[in-house]
Amino acid sequence: MKLKEVLEFLADKIDGVEVGDGFCDDFEILGIESPKLAQSGYITFLEKDKYIIDIQNTNASMIIAREIHKEILPKNRIVVISKNPYLIMAYLTKIFAKPLFSSTISPSISTSAVIKNNVTIGNGSKIGDNTLIMSGVVIGENVEIGDNCIIYPNVCIYNDTKICSSVAIHANSVIGGDGFGYAHTASGEHIKIYHNGVVIIEDDVEIGSNVSVDRAVFGETRIKKGVKIDNLVQIAHNCVLGEYSIIVSQVGLSGSTSTGRNVVLGGQAGSVGHLHIGEFSQIGAKSGITKDVKPFSKMAGYPLLPLQDWLKTHAITRKLLKSK
Amino acid sequence: MKLKEVLEFLADKIDGVEVGDGFCDDFEILGIESPKLAQSGYITFLEKDKYIIDIQNTNASMIIAREIHKEILPKNRIVVISKNPYLIMAYLTKIFAKPLFSSTISPSISTSAVIKNNVTIGNGSKIGDNTLIMSGVVIGENVEIGDNCIIYPNVCIYNDTKICSSVAIHANSVIGGDGFGYAHTASGEHIKIYHNGVVIIEDDVEIGSNVSVDRAVFGETRIKKGVKIDNLVQIAHNCVLGEYSIIVSQVGLSGSTSTGRNVVLGGQAGSVGHLHIGEFSQIGAKSGITKDVKPFSKMAGYPLLPLQDWLKTHAITRKLLKSK
Amino acid sequence: MKLKEVLEFLADKIDGVEVGDGFCDDFEILGIESPKLAQSGYITFLEKDKYIIDIQNTNASMIIAREIHKEILPKNRIVVISKNPYLIMAYLTKIFAKPLFSSTISPSISTSAVIKNNVTIGNGSKIGDNTLIMSGVVIGENVEIGDNCIIYPNVCIYNDTKICSSVAIHANSVIGGDGFGYAHTASGEHIKIYHNGVVIIEDDVEIGSNVSVDRAVFGETRIKKGVKIDNLVQIAHNCVLGEYSIIVSQVGLSGSTSTGRNVVLGGQAGSVGHLHIGEFSQIGAKSGITKDVKPFSKMAGYPLLPLQDWLKTHAITRKLLKSK
Repeated sequence: MKLKEVLEFLADKIDGVEVGDGFCDDFEILGIESPKLAQSGYITFLEKDKYIIDIQNTNASMIIAREIHKEILPKNRIVVISKNPYLIMAYLTKIFAKPLFSSTISPSISTSAVIKNNVTIGNGSKIGDNTLIMSGVVIGENVEIGDNCIIYPNVCIYNDTKICSSVAIHANSVIGGDGFGYAHTASGEHIKIYHNGVVIIEDDVEIGSNVSVDRAVFGETRIKKGVKIDNLVQIAHNCVLGEYSIIVSQVGLSGSTSTGRNVVLGGQAGSVGHLHIGEFSQIGAKSGITKDVKPFSKMAGYPLLPLQDWLKTHAITRKLLKSK
Repeated sequence: MKLKEVLEFLADKIDGVEVGDGFCDDFEILGIESPKLAQSGYITFLEKDKYIIDIQNTNASMIIAREIHKEILPKNRIVVISKNPYLIMAYLTKIFAKPLFSSTISPSISTSAVIKNNVTIGNGSKIGDNTLIMSGVVIGENVEIGDNCIIYPNVCIYNDTKICSSVAIHANSVIGGDGFGYAHTASGEHIKIYHNGVVIIEDDVEIGSNVSVDRAVFGETRIKKGVKIDNLVQIAHNCVLGEYSIIVSQVGLSGSTSTGRNVVLGGQAGSVGHLHIGEFSQIGAKSGITKDVKPFSKMAGYPLLPLQDWLKTHAITRKLLKSK
Repeated sequence: MKLKEVLEFLADKIDGVEVGDGFCDDFEILGIESPKLAQSGYITFLEKDKYIIDIQNTNASMIIAREIHKEILPKNRIVVISKNPYLIMAYLTKIFAKPLFSSTISPSISTSAVIKNNVTIGNGSKIGDNTLIMSGVVIGENVEIGDNCIIYPNVCIYNDTKICSSVAIHANSVIGGDGFGYAHTASGEHIKIYHNGVVIIEDDVEIGSNVSVDRAVFGETRIKKGVKIDNLVQIAHNCVLGEYSIIVSQVGLSGSTSTGRNVVLGGQAGSVGHLHIGEFSQIGAKSGITKDVKPFSKMAGYPLLPLQDWLKTHAITRKLLKSK
């Protein structure tokens, strides 16, 4: 999309714009990215002070920021000023969202793959050797599924998802749905952030039934090699699950939760997101994870405590009940 | 259904019946409703004392009640006496349940709507302009879907659901399933309450994947304008979600929970039902909501506490752990 | 599978084997079972000391056990020695797993059953009288569904499931998916335990939408007569739900949880598995069940307390908040 078109779209939504040297009306804007990942031609934004360093080193051509941050931005960019950069970013995600149907390339299906009845495979998608796609599965456009996978009935895989080899996904799970992200207007309306990132599922992953794995807003949601996910689990946008991690039923991970390898999350545990759970840590059932967890930790409860402390709180409760 | 047929069906289930003046055998009984909504021709029931005022003002033609309440009922009705009015009501919901397939009117689909492969659209249903129905979607009878909606793959929408415009429903969600309601016999069996109400979803609502929204027992379950619902959420029968409310993943709302506008419910929170959460309130993740919440509250925990108190309980826990 | 083939498969995975008298290379190994259920021709294993008595009385022909247990095993068996019997068992489940597609017998469908469009019914399956199978349902091989059932749209029923009569299963639920079970190698990889058991659902059961009921590893997962299950519930492998039990939305039961009759589990409650909840017990919403519950108990909280004690803890919390 031409710079001119982007600025026309923004005209009534922003407080000002300063176009650096050398950007003509026809300059091609390619999309939106986080400050770190954005390359020349991309838009990025400064919402929270903790990203100031990233913004100062970004390669993005356009930066959305507040008036007060104008002086610290890198030179020679297109600077869009708004009291609510996140909201402006949300508006922009819509115009850069890929249409649901755009590819005209017929899907490429290995002759050794087995595709059962009532399956839908979108254009531009690839199905690998010996992979079995069961009845009622719906696969979007530009999806890649590797070799020796089993996709059970009525699974839905959204556009651009990449599934490596020897992956099993059980019935009625949904991979690559839109993440849950909205910016908010002053009057309390929610403006959808279109999620233009992807989901990548590495080798030897097994995913249970009725699981939801959301696509990234930018970049990727990634389920690494050998991860096992039980039924009815929620994996939000931009999560990264470390190799061989075990996610028990009904766990819910908020956006940008990451784990090291061989982490175990007990049933119905949840995380608030934007935190890291160190490798080999074990988190008890029903726990609420609200901050980073060190590697090799055993934790439980909500708020999250070292397992031993959490068990002590039970003894304290029993004691208080007696003394009452 | 004729009064005579209804009374014959009830004959071996009830303790007595008194038919007021002017009701002939052929009097047409139209259905069952709550005391407030019931009009002439309808059946209603008195289960709990808190509905006595409603019963005294009801327009229902038939009232199911206990012997002890006989004297306080309005005059000139058909009064059915039972020790367990709720159970009698449950038996009756079955005979008034609409059959799953009854319409003979071909569905009406806008010429600008896009209907993908393997879609089922029941008789009497309507699909609006520019709406996209993706593969594997199953839409029951007499469903209305407005303009500019996207219904993602393998969603199931039960009969009589009404979806307004600019609504998105992500893959494998279920709208309008039967509510979870049973009456119980003396021997411990559960008699299904057929849910003959509907679900209404207003404009600009987005619903994630693997969500369940149940139909009302009578009346409606309603998701108001601009509400955003994350994945794997449970919305029970007769809930009403206020405008622009945000329901995070894995929340579970029991029957007849209502919220004001712009309420935020954190992930994995739950409500016991039959309560109201005031507008602009924010409820923390994993909270258990057991009573009404005032507008503009910030609450957390189970039992639910003001957020500040809930945070204090963590400090208290840490102190108790040290002193142990 | 011939004994010779089984031992060749195991050769590089085990520490030794001793073949009792009378077992020839061609001896037919039929499968894997728990010590109690295993008959002649079957393999079983000793993982935990609490199963020693069962092992000493097993009819299994082959026993996988640790070196230290060699002396206490029954005589004249094929004894396989490993430091990790559970891992060896996991490897073996794969070679005894039934293929997903193997039957050549056309499904048998009652002439009074109604099968809607886009339904898949696997070979060897049977559909009873007056049963309604709605659009998009996928039924595997050798599934039995009795009379007067309703299977709502997009439900998936895996191979070998048995559903009795007057059962309703709401949209997008999954019955018979693989249980979540893995053995772990020394390097932290997870070896899938193929679940070769089944799910049995007795008469008059109703199951909500988006529910997952997993098949047993050996033997069966069983939902007994008259049980009612709400939406988004997780029932793991080998659970047994007693007659007329009520399972509210978003409950999660870990493997081998069993209940007596007329148990009520409140919404979002969870169990750790391998425990029994006595008949007529009621467990509060959001409870965490970590050990056996006596019949007729009323319990709540996590850790689980008698309901009265749990309510007292709220009073204690309020008191502590005041004194702070």
